[in-house]
Amino acid sequence: MTGRVRASWEARTRVGADVGGTKIAVGLVAEDGTLLASAVRPTPAAQGPVAVLDAIAQAVRELPGYERASGLGVGTGGVVNRDDGTVVSANDLLPGWAGTRLGEELAARLGMPVAADNDANVFALAEQVHGAGAGCTTALYVSVGTGIGGGIVTGGRLLRGEHWTAGEFGHIAVPEAAGRPCNCGRSGHLEAIASGPAIAARFAERTGAAHPVDLRHVAALAGEAAEGAQAGGGGQGGSRQGEEESATAREVLAQGAGALGRALAGLVNTLDPERVVIGGGVASVGAPFWRPLTEAFAAELLPGPSRLRPVPAALGPRAAVVGAAALLREEPARATGPGGTAHPRTPSSTKDAP
Amino acid sequence: MTGRVRASWEARTRVGADVGGTKIAVGLVAEDGTLLASAVRPTPAAQGPVAVLDAIAQAVRELPGYERASGLGVGTGGVVNRDDGTVVSANDLLPGWAGTRLGEELAARLGMPVAADNDANVFALAEQVHGAGAGCTTALYVSVGTGIGGGIVTGGRLLRGEHWTAGEFGHIAVPEAAGRPCNCGRSGHLEAIASGPAIAARFAERTGAAHPVDLRHVAALAGEAAEGAQAGGGGQGGSRQGEEESATAREVLAQGAGALGRALAGLVNTLDPERVVIGGGVASVGAPFWRPLTEAFAAELLPGPSRLRPVPAALGPRAAVVGAAALLREEPARATGPGGTAHPRTPSSTKDAP
Repeated sequence: MTGRVRASWEARTRVGADVGGTKIAVGLVAEDGTLLASAVRPTPAAQGPVAVLDAIAQAVRELPGYERASGLGVGTGGVVNRDDGTVVSANDLLPGWAGTRLGEELAARLGMPVAADNDANVFALAEQVHGAGAGCTTALYVSVGTGIGGGIVTGGRLLRGEHWTAGEFGHIAVPEAAGRPCNCGRSGHLEAIASGPAIAARFAERTGAAHPVDLRHVAALAGEAAEGAQAGGGGQGGSRQGEEESATAREVLAQGAGALGRALAGLVNTLDPERVVIGGGVASVGAPFWRPLTEAFAAELLPGPSRLRPVPAALGPRAAVVGAAALLREEPARATGPGGTAHPRTPSSTKDAP
Repeated sequence: MTGRVRASWEARTRVGADVGGTKIAVGLVAEDGTLLASAVRPTPAAQGPVAVLDAIAQAVRELPGYERASGLGVGTGGVVNRDDGTVVSANDLLPGWAGTRLGEELAARLGMPVAADNDANVFALAEQVHGAGAGCTTALYVSVGTGIGGGIVTGGRLLRGEHWTAGEFGHIAVPEAAGRPCNCGRSGHLEAIASGPAIAARFAERTGAAHPVDLRHVAALAGEAAEGAQAGGGGQGGSRQGEEESATAREVLAQGAGALGRALAGLVNTLDPERVVIGGGVASVGAPFWRPLTEAFAAELLPGPSRLRPVPAALGPRAAVVGAAALLREEPARATGPGGTAHPRTPSSTKDAP
């Protein structure tokens, strides 16, 4: 790329946008991944796709000097056709989003090249270009939160798949989830035991909680348990019920993390990657998640990759905007120009476009 | 490649060699994958690596006009460094094989460029270049026999992995194998339920067989059961014990095939490939294997790849020699020249070498 890029501010700064069901985050991203400016506004999801597109464009226009950026990259929920920037399918958080020509519509509104992709791929790309997997040729990027998704890099490129769904780590059958219903409508999948809601649901089941619990609650209890253990086992002021709940929290986290570790090790045995990077809300729980994850992972590895260990993602929530901007760095360049013309899989098509 | 290849017999014909623990098979392979000539001799495994290398060279020299071929590709058991043609590790079938510089030693003996790789990768390459996956950009090639191995193609290239072990499909934890010991020393892996020996062992367990059974026996019984069912349920001349054994044979095959189908579907959900190709001895059992495999596979797929179905490998036993020869077609070219110089990951390095 360096050979073609003009040594100017415009060519090295890109706009990234993260479009979720509740908010739109945008940022100006420098060549090295630094977030130079950012803005957030609510997603008018209920008003339909046109309102959402207008809101994205408006958010971008709030960024100082946005018009001199070399392009806009967009990450969003659902399945996205990376070649033409169209949303292939989406869930109820963005009603009517499927079929939206993100690339074309935003290029027309903003007068710059636009690239779009699924938010899990964007997370992977951010970590691959600027984060914990920088420089790797083959790597797995796993985001563990409400669901379990991510991206796979082989030969230095993010694998998109035949139907733009590569990187769906959550729908592998695992022994630990046998019989547990999965969001996809089947059962026994990794996501049914290791996602944030699955861990919280398992805690509620085990403790007979009267009201719904979320992962944060479970993580807090597990953290107390860990501190209690470090202090010699005696929690200060903790009731017996409190101690039991802490132990249960630790246990359900360890079950989810263990299932994830074993499943990822199976993928490592199969793909033999250079690195495994894990991010997302569940990964940020800390030791009560990482310790059982790493142990289960290490125990399953074949001799070849036996020394590999998972590492935490480096960029945190910034990954969404920074990774979206990085879509414009991918070779061959694929972005929709302001004239509405997509240039699928043709190198250097729109990089110097107005 | 076409731009550089001379329009001569030499440049379009390659030698392939398949080196196993009991026999060495070699062949002259035309550009289109046709096997022009072949030879087989026993592997002098007990006499050590030098004797095996000499035997490979001798077998190649038996091929008419071998000296005009553009190079030799070798497939062998164990882990092989694809860049320099060295055996990284091997099992007891070829004592002392680890550390053998296959590429260098054979190039010196035969005066032609040599490329070497693991036999499961060679199977995958054969099917990718000349077989059931021809033209695919992303595909899984799975060989189900004594073990479960294969290769993964992404971006049109065979994935080798960081430790040359990519394509080890057998060591994924699957619910169906829980507690069953695996060849790798762990337990609960796919290979412990779906490989040929695992299916045969399960049959022996279930029937309390006094002597060891092999997969062929199980397959024959399952085939009779299938024929009996087609004929209306009544097996001619089959004793009650025979009928029960047939039903058990069908059942253990279905369990192995179902576990394989679900595990492969999990990989398809993760990698979203264009094709899944299955070969090897177990796959040749026919309907008692393919029917439960396909059903379990289809039931697990996410909406994106939901219409994908596994297809049988096309080349059969020929894949070993044809795929080995195809190693010399890979770009960037990686072969060890007669002078002993490896040219790792440098394009077109040895294609026109003597």
